[in-house]
Amino acid sequence: TYNPAAPGTLISSRRSGDGEGLAKGITSIGDLSLLTLRGAGMVGVPGIAERLFRTLASRRVNVILISQASSEHTICFAVLSADTDRAVDGIGQEFRFELQHRLMSLEDKTGQAILAVVGEGMKGRPGVAGKVFEALGRHNINISAIAQGASERNISCVINAAQQVHALNVIHEAFFETRKRLALAIVGVGNIGTALLRQLQQQRAYLLSKGFDVTVVGLADSKRFALAPEGINLTRWKETLAAARHRMTPETFAEHVAGMKLTNVALVDCTANPSIVDAYPAFINRDLHIITPNKRANALPWRRYTALMQLLDRRQKYFLYEANVGAGLPVMSTLRDLIASGDEIVRIEGILSGTLSYLFNTFDGSVPFSELVREAHTLGFTEPDPRDDLSGQDVARKLLILARQIGLKMDLSEVRVDSLVPRALGRGAYSPRFLTAFARYDHEMTKRVKSAASRGAVLRYVGILENGRARAGLNEFPRDHPVASAKGSDNVIAFTTTRYSRTPLVVQGPGAGADVTAMGVFSDILKLLHYLPQ
Amino acid sequence: TYNPAAPGTLISSRRSGDGEGLAKGITSIGDLSLLTLRGAGMVGVPGIAERLFRTLASRRVNVILISQASSEHTICFAVLSADTDRAVDGIGQEFRFELQHRLMSLEDKTGQAILAVVGEGMKGRPGVAGKVFEALGRHNINISAIAQGASERNISCVINAAQQVHALNVIHEAFFETRKRLALAIVGVGNIGTALLRQLQQQRAYLLSKGFDVTVVGLADSKRFALAPEGINLTRWKETLAAARHRMTPETFAEHVAGMKLTNVALVDCTANPSIVDAYPAFINRDLHIITPNKRANALPWRRYTALMQLLDRRQKYFLYEANVGAGLPVMSTLRDLIASGDEIVRIEGILSGTLSYLFNTFDGSVPFSELVREAHTLGFTEPDPRDDLSGQDVARKLLILARQIGLKMDLSEVRVDSLVPRALGRGAYSPRFLTAFARYDHEMTKRVKSAASRGAVLRYVGILENGRARAGLNEFPRDHPVASAKGSDNVIAFTTTRYSRTPLVVQGPGAGADVTAMGVFSDILKLLHYLPQ
Repeated sequence: TYNPAAPGTLISSRRSGDGEGLAKGITSIGDLSLLTLRGAGMVGVPGIAERLFRTLASRRVNVILISQASSEHTICFAVLSADTDRAVDGIGQEFRFELQHRLMSLEDKTGQAILAVVGEGMKGRPGVAGKVFEALGRHNINISAIAQGASERNISCVINAAQQVHALNVIHEAFFETRKRLALAIVGVGNIGTALLRQLQQQRAYLLSKGFDVTVVGLADSKRFALAPEGINLTRWKETLAAARHRMTPETFAEHVAGMKLTNVALVDCTANPSIVDAYPAFINRDLHIITPNKRANALPWRRYTALMQLLDRRQKYFLYEANVGAGLPVMSTLRDLIASGDEIVRIEGILSGTLSYLFNTFDGSVPFSELVREAHTLGFTEPDPRDDLSGQDVARKLLILARQIGLKMDLSEVRVDSLVPRALGRGAYSPRFLTAFARYDHEMTKRVKSAASRGAVLRYVGILENGRARAGLNEFPRDHPVASAKGSDNVIAFTTTRYSRTPLVVQGPGAGADVTAMGVFSDILKLLHYLPQ
Repeated sequence: TYNPAAPGTLISSRRSGDGEGLAKGITSIGDLSLLTLRGAGMVGVPGIAERLFRTLASRRVNVILISQASSEHTICFAVLSADTDRAVDGIGQEFRFELQHRLMSLEDKTGQAILAVVGEGMKGRPGVAGKVFEALGRHNINISAIAQGASERNISCVINAAQQVHALNVIHEAFFETRKRLALAIVGVGNIGTALLRQLQQQRAYLLSKGFDVTVVGLADSKRFALAPEGINLTRWKETLAAARHRMTPETFAEHVAGMKLTNVALVDCTANPSIVDAYPAFINRDLHIITPNKRANALPWRRYTALMQLLDRRQKYFLYEANVGAGLPVMSTLRDLIASGDEIVRIEGILSGTLSYLFNTFDGSVPFSELVREAHTLGFTEPDPRDDLSGQDVARKLLILARQIGLKMDLSEVRVDSLVPRALGRGAYSPRFLTAFARYDHEMTKRVKSAASRGAVLRYVGILENGRARAGLNEFPRDHPVASAKGSDNVIAFTTTRYSRTPLVVQGPGAGADVTAMGVFSDILKLLHYLPQ
């Protein structure tokens, strides 16, 4: 019935060995017209069908597909473009009366293609049609007509010819790819971004073995971005990025990534940059999920924060940020599970800053506090301006994130923060003279730590969330308190809840560093892979 | 073209107000036959179609649906059962020559029904067909023929009439339910089961607010089971179970739960029972996922364990068991994330038994060890036979589960266990005389704890997994070691990895008790909800 040699017909076909043994091949025929004969009062279709097909036969029109759905007063059929005029002409003559009196109408949709999934194993196997149409729907490929005969060896559908190749790929993927795909657009190639790219490269084989195909399709630093719909080769991403021609702005990056028309895409924001956060809506509106260690989105002023949450909700996009608190430690996920299972948070207490953890785990009064800060600064354990750590603002931001996670309406200004930076030294740009001036306050700190020690206690800079209030500051803890057991630059987060009431649930360990922060991001990528449809 | 008043025709229709504005109604027509005219050398279908429809028209046969897929030498059409004989008869006469010479064949499939999804908003909206067929496929409803005309207002498909009502429900759910459904079949209503049922009841509103509709459709104790496809009322599950008539065997429970033909179903095994574990394959083969705090499946002999894992893999079912180690503490999920992100496990060390944790957190030599055991036994902190705790077998089982999780091929017999029960006292059934006899060993234990204290150390019964080997036993730890900071009956699990090398990632907190164990199960339910398709 159809003639592959007909002029203007593009036949493409793919086969794969196994493909679950369902579909044997996918064929497409391009350059068709879809004709629909419609009649509002078209009763007695058998008679209409007879006249229609007699006309088409007499004009030597090949009918590629016929579909007449129940309860519809239409017959719909596909013919080769080359036959269209003859078909229209013939029908015009045969149904002249009905057409002139508007009892019937004939619609002619050119530029159509047929996609056919053929296979012996399809017979009696439910799910083939679902697979075909779910995949096409997910890729926004509209279907004009469908026919599947009772032989159950062929499902055909009519689509726009412009989408023919895309549709072929989509169907092929649905049948012969059992992998779940996730495309990442990564912004930021500093320590964390670099560590993440390394982990993604190292774990590619592992992820594939689990059925996950994760590729980096976009990579940006502050100046430029590179794109590769098939995935950037992660062994040489530096060269690829250096050679990239696109000038980086978050908006154009979002636009170009969306332009690749991939299914599951996530923005991975590995910056600490507010300008990327400002562009999150642009990414979300283009159907990207967001994964980030960047704390700025969760610490936005309340109105902007809720607007962002509502947008995510409306667009049904995931926003994952495990690395916001405690880097790779399971903090956010634990908190989520506690809340979801109906536990009530009584108190969250912990050491939330690796730098302050290190300083107070080391400080016993034998060396002046300012000296420890100077050493840490030299070793790169602090921010370039150590006041960013000492001010407690980083701790305050993490407390705010935890508070919002448990449903509190809170802004950063509402977190009470005891800064370790004397007011007089807090202003202006950082200069090395800060540490010299800071030394003048050493005796106070020494007195405090020794006084605590005399009571068998230690000093720790902690964040506490309790009774709807958050505060950050220096506290004394008995030596056997969970908070006191932190070592090095460990974070400690203790959740006291209705269920964990006698002793808290504690998560402890290194809470900063590129590798463990990237691991937190990686765990979000895994979560997203699980959440996404095939 | 179709006649709703025709005898033997069942028309059912449902409408919903919004339903995403896609489908307006779902209609079904029962009591049909699907006829297929097929010809291996059937060329020039237009001629055939002409003759076919002329014949049907002359016999006054209503044709409900026509489908001729591309590249198939068949025309397939549905007629009312009442018209079937006339149709077959007419075709027999018209195509007598072709049929006699086996150039053509006519197939007649009775007992069919047509399901039609109708709606104005469907036009130009991709995804409707996908939604329809994905849902039918997921419910194993086989589709014999499909037709969708170019008006895009009607998708019709032919199914077995026996599945008509089921199919209607399925399609209705797909269009008008935006909630993700999960049906649970819970076995075991002891402390953990009861706590889980309470959490499910308390969190029902929360889960619904997140778009999750979790119901308990089956509930079993050792004697009987209750079923309720719409969900058991969790405020009175005890009465429901007491009134249940079904005698409990895992096989019949599996059969009845599967008989409800629900989409997403999980067995939640809240027993410590090996006979339920033996029946896991019966549940998995009936498409149930498995969630359990029961350690027995993960501790099965290697061959049975791998067979179970392979079955899960083949049937694409999830097996979740967060509560196996540390109850509600995030132990398994943390381990999974570490491995997946490419970290290498160097050592897992921890206090894995709440009972042994309590005993050694309390024991300092001032009270004899056997006396502490007696107290704990009286308070119900130990198993009915305290030797089950003291033998270290529970710790060994948890070590085995951790070992298998990190990919080691290990059996329980390969875990080296130092039992605290003297060989002479380990045999036979438990009697209270055990504790009297056990007191004879008190002096040794006192000596050990005092000797440790003299070195500034404490005694803890721990499990250690390192270099591919697992061992459980009593060890000394410096007072500032994470393991020494456990309080009450806390579990402590310390992961030393390539990334967490200087200080380990530590999870600590109460690791036993009904509420926190149920919370571990609940967190698995949440995971499954995220993993499942709509």
